[in-house]
Amino acid sequence: MEDRGTRAGSMRVLLRRRDGASGGFEEDAVVVEEPLEIRVREGREGGAVRLLVTMRTPGHDEDLAAGLLFSEGVIGAADELLDVARLDDAKTSPEIARNVVVATVTERPGGARVSARRAELMSSACGVCGATSIDRVRELAEAARRGAGEADREGPVVGASVLTALPDALRRQQAIFRSTGGLHAAGLFAADGTLVVVREDVGRHNATDKAIGALLREGRPSPPILLVSGRLGFEIAQKAALAGVRILCSVSAPTSLAVELAEETGMTVVGFLRGERFNVYCRPERVDLGA
Amino acid sequence: MEDRGTRAGSMRVLLRRRDGASGGFEEDAVVVEEPLEIRVREGREGGAVRLLVTMRTPGHDEDLAAGLLFSEGVIGAADELLDVARLDDAKTSPEIARNVVVATVTERPGGARVSARRAELMSSACGVCGATSIDRVRELAEAARRGAGEADREGPVVGASVLTALPDALRRQQAIFRSTGGLHAAGLFAADGTLVVVREDVGRHNATDKAIGALLREGRPSPPILLVSGRLGFEIAQKAALAGVRILCSVSAPTSLAVELAEETGMTVVGFLRGERFNVYCRPERVDLGA
Repeated sequence: MEDRGTRAGSMRVLLRRRDGASGGFEEDAVVVEEPLEIRVREGREGGAVRLLVTMRTPGHDEDLAAGLLFSEGVIGAADELLDVARLDDAKTSPEIARNVVVATVTERPGGARVSARRAELMSSACGVCGATSIDRVRELAEAARRGAGEADREGPVVGASVLTALPDALRRQQAIFRSTGGLHAAGLFAADGTLVVVREDVGRHNATDKAIGALLREGRPSPPILLVSGRLGFEIAQKAALAGVRILCSVSAPTSLAVELAEETGMTVVGFLRGERFNVYCRPERVDLGA
Repeated sequence: MEDRGTRAGSMRVLLRRRDGASGGFEEDAVVVEEPLEIRVREGREGGAVRLLVTMRTPGHDEDLAAGLLFSEGVIGAADELLDVARLDDAKTSPEIARNVVVATVTERPGGARVSARRAELMSSACGVCGATSIDRVRELAEAARRGAGEADREGPVVGASVLTALPDALRRQQAIFRSTGGLHAAGLFAADGTLVVVREDVGRHNATDKAIGALLREGRPSPPILLVSGRLGFEIAQKAALAGVRILCSVSAPTSLAVELAEETGMTVVGFLRGERFNVYCRPERVDLGA
């Protein structure tokens, strides 16, 4: 591979293509994957502590950090995030600094927000990126249920034609995918199918965190529909439930635990959303199959 | 969703299908996702310590544990794994025990194998499941390069027709995928295209760990070709490099960091392996495009 210059999210490489005929070198794009380190400080005077590192596609890194802090429980609401910005530190080289963001969160009485969360992550061995203990999974599912709230359980009823239009709307906004074929996307939609925000990443989880984080940074509530471009597992269902999503859609398959969590938190799950077809795995009362 | 009985890897559910015509309830299968807790004890007399928990599709859990312990550096070779088995403990309910495996590893002088590794995981915030620090990514890449070894850098040269036959060979062995459409697979192949082992999981990383772990448990070296059914990112490239894979294939897109790591560890990367076509991203000398 030879780097032929980077632009956001994709990189030009030289490769050999085998399609029956020629065998020469050609240029094509691959999706960029790089580690992002997220540091958190409590209060504007506090020192920054490294919370976690995730592999991601560069772009909308501040949204990713905001979404991850929310879905991992470091912040519980938008107003607890004071600021999130790329590392600006004269001692750090630009090459490192572009892969580090610093989030400033409000101080809690006792100032233990980050250290408590870190200790919790460590005691569950590795709770950040989905490797949660069995007990922790139960806890998070219960927290998500509490977050969803009885009052908000109803949510909108949407027509089948609104759902079947979502994948095209998502794809039209996917700039990087077109050039590399390698990116996942997550889109949040209003009940009438209007796309509110879309984010891309090599990982579905990151794309979801970026989309949720983008709205969180603006202090806007999540709209009711989330569509992800790949498989729908427990962790994405958990992020959606915490954000207040009511109709969780995937162009691919949901897992048993995603459907269980959705059922328990009152979310509708729509899978294999392709062309005019889809499956509804739970809470079908929110989908009007005739409309 | 209503559980209609579980069998390994998939679960029957009731769902509503929208395909233009009917709107009644039907039965279909979804892929099962459940947490697996991996405990490790040093020596047969040692106490078991929880190392990590990962979300996985039940089945071949002992292979998954063996592969994860190897790719995470808890064991460095097959002979350091004495035993791996489901938790057998009269105090634990069968429902919990089926999601817990206990690995017994050899003692190291000082007995610090697991505790040292746990401390290391924690100091890098969360190194188990890919959320590694920037420095740790560099370290692991270097360890993988050392693991690959100069002597073994050459590897086999395979014909294009061997490569294009791999995806069908993988799919023929994928039992669960056929019923749910929701599973990833990883297959290890000999240089002549013979399938040596295939494993399935809702996660590509787990499928890869299961395949590598299956051979590790038998004390067999990894064959030279790995094919994964999904996107090819840094972590899978890292697992492959550590296992000694020489030709890393995906039916989908590789990421920039996967190609970089492969280039540095001397692996060939083949992407978008579909039908008669594929791309070679690095080390093309191992692929005979005319054969």
